[in-house]
Amino acid sequence: MHDDARLVRRSFDPSGLAKEETLFALSNGRVGLRGDQDEGGPAWHRGTYVNGFFDGEPIAYGEKAYGYAERHQTMLNVPDAKRFTLELDGRPFRVDDPSVFSYSRVLDLDAARLDRVVDLRLPSGAVLRVRSSRLACLARPSTAAFGYGIRVLSGEVRVAVRTGLDPELGNLSSRDDPRVGARFSERPLIVATSGRSARTVRLGCLTRSSGLGLGCASAQRAILSRRSAAAMERTPDDEPGPAPFELSWTLALAAGDELVVEKTAAWVPGAASALEGLVDAARADAEAALASGFEALAGEQRAIAASFWERADIRVGGDEASQEALRFNLFHLWQAAGRDGRSGLCAKGLTGEGYEGHAFWDTEIYACTVFDYVAPELSRALLSWRHGTLDKARARARQLSHRGALFPWRTIDGNEASAYYPAGTAQYHINADIAYACERYVSASGDGRFLREEAAEIAVETARFWLSLGHFGRDGRFHIHCVTGPDEYTALVDDNRYTNRMARRNLLLAARVVELLEAEAASGSGGALERLRARTALEPEEAAAWRKAAEAMELSVDPETGVTPQDATFLSKPAWDFAGTPKDKYPLLLHFHPLEIYRRRVLKQPDVVLAQFLLPAEFDAEQKRRDFEYYEPLTTGDSSLSHCVQSVMAAELGEVGKAWDYFTRTSRMDLDDVHGNARDGVHIAAMAGTWISAVCGFGGFRELDGEWSFAPRLPEAWTSLEFRLALRGARLSVRVGRAGTEYALEAEAAPDAPEAIVLRHHGRAFELRRGGTRRFPGLSA
Amino acid sequence: MHDDARLVRRSFDPSGLAKEETLFALSNGRVGLRGDQDEGGPAWHRGTYVNGFFDGEPIAYGEKAYGYAERHQTMLNVPDAKRFTLELDGRPFRVDDPSVFSYSRVLDLDAARLDRVVDLRLPSGAVLRVRSSRLACLARPSTAAFGYGIRVLSGEVRVAVRTGLDPELGNLSSRDDPRVGARFSERPLIVATSGRSARTVRLGCLTRSSGLGLGCASAQRAILSRRSAAAMERTPDDEPGPAPFELSWTLALAAGDELVVEKTAAWVPGAASALEGLVDAARADAEAALASGFEALAGEQRAIAASFWERADIRVGGDEASQEALRFNLFHLWQAAGRDGRSGLCAKGLTGEGYEGHAFWDTEIYACTVFDYVAPELSRALLSWRHGTLDKARARARQLSHRGALFPWRTIDGNEASAYYPAGTAQYHINADIAYACERYVSASGDGRFLREEAAEIAVETARFWLSLGHFGRDGRFHIHCVTGPDEYTALVDDNRYTNRMARRNLLLAARVVELLEAEAASGSGGALERLRARTALEPEEAAAWRKAAEAMELSVDPETGVTPQDATFLSKPAWDFAGTPKDKYPLLLHFHPLEIYRRRVLKQPDVVLAQFLLPAEFDAEQKRRDFEYYEPLTTGDSSLSHCVQSVMAAELGEVGKAWDYFTRTSRMDLDDVHGNARDGVHIAAMAGTWISAVCGFGGFRELDGEWSFAPRLPEAWTSLEFRLALRGARLSVRVGRAGTEYALEAEAAPDAPEAIVLRHHGRAFELRRGGTRRFPGLSA
Repeated sequence: MHDDARLVRRSFDPSGLAKEETLFALSNGRVGLRGDQDEGGPAWHRGTYVNGFFDGEPIAYGEKAYGYAERHQTMLNVPDAKRFTLELDGRPFRVDDPSVFSYSRVLDLDAARLDRVVDLRLPSGAVLRVRSSRLACLARPSTAAFGYGIRVLSGEVRVAVRTGLDPELGNLSSRDDPRVGARFSERPLIVATSGRSARTVRLGCLTRSSGLGLGCASAQRAILSRRSAAAMERTPDDEPGPAPFELSWTLALAAGDELVVEKTAAWVPGAASALEGLVDAARADAEAALASGFEALAGEQRAIAASFWERADIRVGGDEASQEALRFNLFHLWQAAGRDGRSGLCAKGLTGEGYEGHAFWDTEIYACTVFDYVAPELSRALLSWRHGTLDKARARARQLSHRGALFPWRTIDGNEASAYYPAGTAQYHINADIAYACERYVSASGDGRFLREEAAEIAVETARFWLSLGHFGRDGRFHIHCVTGPDEYTALVDDNRYTNRMARRNLLLAARVVELLEAEAASGSGGALERLRARTALEPEEAAAWRKAAEAMELSVDPETGVTPQDATFLSKPAWDFAGTPKDKYPLLLHFHPLEIYRRRVLKQPDVVLAQFLLPAEFDAEQKRRDFEYYEPLTTGDSSLSHCVQSVMAAELGEVGKAWDYFTRTSRMDLDDVHGNARDGVHIAAMAGTWISAVCGFGGFRELDGEWSFAPRLPEAWTSLEFRLALRGARLSVRVGRAGTEYALEAEAAPDAPEAIVLRHHGRAFELRRGGTRRFPGLSA
Repeated sequence: MHDDARLVRRSFDPSGLAKEETLFALSNGRVGLRGDQDEGGPAWHRGTYVNGFFDGEPIAYGEKAYGYAERHQTMLNVPDAKRFTLELDGRPFRVDDPSVFSYSRVLDLDAARLDRVVDLRLPSGAVLRVRSSRLACLARPSTAAFGYGIRVLSGEVRVAVRTGLDPELGNLSSRDDPRVGARFSERPLIVATSGRSARTVRLGCLTRSSGLGLGCASAQRAILSRRSAAAMERTPDDEPGPAPFELSWTLALAAGDELVVEKTAAWVPGAASALEGLVDAARADAEAALASGFEALAGEQRAIAASFWERADIRVGGDEASQEALRFNLFHLWQAAGRDGRSGLCAKGLTGEGYEGHAFWDTEIYACTVFDYVAPELSRALLSWRHGTLDKARARARQLSHRGALFPWRTIDGNEASAYYPAGTAQYHINADIAYACERYVSASGDGRFLREEAAEIAVETARFWLSLGHFGRDGRFHIHCVTGPDEYTALVDDNRYTNRMARRNLLLAARVVELLEAEAASGSGGALERLRARTALEPEEAAAWRKAAEAMELSVDPETGVTPQDATFLSKPAWDFAGTPKDKYPLLLHFHPLEIYRRRVLKQPDVVLAQFLLPAEFDAEQKRRDFEYYEPLTTGDSSLSHCVQSVMAAELGEVGKAWDYFTRTSRMDLDDVHGNARDGVHIAAMAGTWISAVCGFGGFRELDGEWSFAPRLPEAWTSLEFRLALRGARLSVRVGRAGTEYALEAEAAPDAPEAIVLRHHGRAFELRRGGTRRFPGLSA
């Protein structure tokens, strides 16, 4: 597909250890492996994570009140399978050993694999090549695969290799940074059962309080390319005792000899009560994978990755740094998402412990925006996961004296885990974000079944929530008070315009779905309405009430300036003293009390502008410009979610240079560790934001109520931009060049895909048939 | 002075144990003794407290942010001296023993002592009388005194008594009630040194982290009224070993014999590094007091109490329940206050562990309102304590990016200990409350030295704070955003009218003091201005800037209704569903999430109405009526600080029946355990509120910028009301009867007291000379 999709390091840099562990992480949406070095050290934090596998503990509040979230949730660092302990002539080897004279590490995005090659010269004069490879198997949710080889290039060496499972690792602790969180710095898992055979190591682990169990197994075998003089010694079968859960091989190698250890590992989470079965399943998965062999597994992996890139690849001409960032970020985004409908997408993927492994609105508003068009099956899986937590959301709404359902601001299992409600539970907009993502997924994919089942149920319960949260004021408008919008530099405000705007959309979606199902029921087609009624106790007048609230929603602009106020009082707040705030006082949240930040006219991210990106048809161009220009100088960008949206809207306003500036601050956030916290994991939302900036910003791609439009505007640095989109199963490729833009609809498509689609190029509508191409000269309208 | 000032119990009620321990507590402002039974049981919680003696631990936040209070502070339960372990014929005795046939317990408010008399008939047929007495010595800050006697009325008995110090008690833990708090349920103190002699027991205790030490000693001796046949056995002198820190006496008593153990105990707090000296001081204090003997100590005590009641007694005719409550509450209020200028006044006094022993604004706005007129030396001591914490308040303001000083919302040592800033640090009004109390104390007492020194410094630093917290808006008004007023059922609002009104007063006070000192300096009298400048780096233009902000302060009323809005958005909040809220859902804070409470038009207490009580000259009668009537139906009274203010203002509006209703809900809050939490300590603010309701409500007493006025309105239930007030050292007594009101100024007064004062009776001004009396017929103007 493309030939330079690789993140490459040609030397080992100990100072970048923590960040590199994050960048070189692998995942298949279930299992995540940090990119720590194979020998277990040097390491900043060796991490292995299983999506949805967590432990909880009561949240300690200095002062507690009714309805506070009860328990922390923390994604656990599970037993590690990455480590291969290597001794050469009796001395432990690590990659920072002075014997190393050549180092190469490659994250191959096309193959979804990590390879390392190290050459070293021992004190004896012997020269060795140590090669390792790693996969988080995309075809096998539970499984990871490893290869570790020692080849003697010259001389002789006595080699000992040990590997298996290491349950001794704990989670990181906090350091007072709210962006990390602090739990379980002690070893979090209880090893309840274990076993070892000639080929496998098995562990059954229990959490301390969340009631979960984890079966873990590794299978490994050694392959000697040429038998040397000494026999290979191996750990005896089923050796008892508490020794490390490892197998070992010891032998002497001579020039030309190569010892390769192939290994697979599987982690199978489930209920604690089913632990034995989980261990058996893990063992079976690991053994089955080992039986295939590493090369076959790597082949499977490459095929799946190729299929993704086939649909999703994005290319820019003339700018290698952007190209690297676009592909790297898209790869991480793609590999991070839960795929099974029972797990979500952590804010840091499965690459680190930042935000404790919680999912936020990033999933729906950032990640799904990408998946809808390049991997819609992932949007569906993530939204199905949300739908599966609906009963918990219903219970939470009841607890808070409301009807319907309230989804959690941050969670692993669907229960609210936010310990600071002003920037947690008060972010009610999560409800509308989820409903919005349902609507957009359906619109992009044409998945009518999802609309009528999961989306309908979500829309009804969230619409009910809004009706019960808000009220009709003396002015006849529908107001929603005491909320926190996406901009966390204000809190507990009235009529946050993002929240109101999205809540309105949520109410209308619910009304439209119910009306659709009623119409279908009236015409005798389908039982979706009956099922919805059964699941939600829907009453006849509800849709009308939602419409009424939506139509009366408070969305007024400031009469003096025409600016959309972020909330009822935002425009009258005193100014932030930007001139008097030195650079080292950013991000503000680490240097100023929330009261001082909330009090003043300063933003973490411009949520009015975000709403204008998400709902482009609801604002005219002048409004967008006014608001963009008003909020821009007030925005710190202390949120990693801010710049990509500003980039998109700057592009829409024709300010391509500014859009480019914002793009560069988003696109290499992790690659260049812009926020200094890449060690804690990648910034999934910013990674999605990179694609969004490119496709929706420079490509000008929007969906406007079922119609798709483009308004390409290339930045100076790029000679071209190519991307692909899945639109209701049809596959569109867009190529923007200096000379013009070309739209091509592939002949092949999904079974239900339309024969033709209508698009707009800078406002000009045109139809594109399957197999057809349309070219527009020039760069702008 | 009066003859029925006693709280009496004629039987022991085990079900009221927890509450009675609170009601029967004694204190001298330094040492507090809960009213637990002498034998150590039955007990709900045996408590002994030393004002200002606390330990801290880091506050655990679910999510932490910059500027949060770092450490909890918890008043510690210190070694207990109250327990006398008694064995009769080898069986342990407690007051719930079935042998008891007569029980009497009396808290004597005139004598500031607690007495208990128990008669019992043993299985042997012997009849005994066990008497105990207890004092928290008002003349000796460190010291408490005890008497414990066993008298044989008939028969014979073998008696064993042990007493000393018990360091084994810990603090209570929370039970999730924010009104209690939860710290140090483990034994909090480290016993670092101990010793015992023939007469004394000594302990040196260290806190775990606050760096404080506590010297404790008890001294005791047994007195046998008639030597019986058996010799008295006693603990040998200076017996070594880890045995309980007690001395014991064992002997056989025959009819007519009486064994009395007299005991004193002292607690001397200080720096941990000075522990040895603290123990020596405690021992010296205990021994000196024991040398005086219990009866002499009781005599000292009675004299001090009499002097207080001489100045402070308040009498009502025709209503014994009110009479009991008025005296009981006033007694508790008086005994609770720190007297040494280095300790404050806990919200629960020294009677229990509710609110962890913290001082709040209750001190200045409730307690000092009483003390200013009946015990001004206590107001001065408490305000001196605040002044002593000014450097900590300066540091806190700097930490929060402000100038001047910010006093803590809750504290023991002057550092902020509030773990929930929306109802903690955001209650900036504490600053204005303290400045207000300084102003009123000076006005009531005429203490010009305090005005020019401590008050001036406090006023300058708090005024600076307001100027830096607020801002001039586009409308030219001075606004203060993102604050929480006294009504904690709203939070983080703009322009809370109580806060703005009191901040204005604070700014004007600072300006007036500075201008006064400038004028005095110009006329060459006194160096107060120089000292103030040295302490505050006062600049020439500051007073003018304070005046400007004060004059522009946003205080507007709602143009439609004329109501003073509680804050910028209060009137537009949706209504609370009072009709749909069952009684068992109160207090709301225990049954609804803060977001739901904050969102709606519902009050814990009406702070607009409070401002109108505190600053009566700033509002006209119509405004007061409008606001009272608007807020009354919205007020839950979930705060114990609410009803007394509503009572006062109802009386001012002539609604005496309503005033009476509110009075009854305040006055017996602890006696009748109205809120069900008397076990955690008395409600000091409500106790002050009882006096305030009577004197300022039914007496109609107000200070209006240096003038005092009265507007008596007796409730139906009362035939008369008499109270006394100290006014600039002159002593006024007021007697309100059905036939009229009599004002009398005593001939004797303090040296600087004025010869005559001008008063108003229902608006009518009159002068009263020392020794003079003035009588107004009828009940109202």
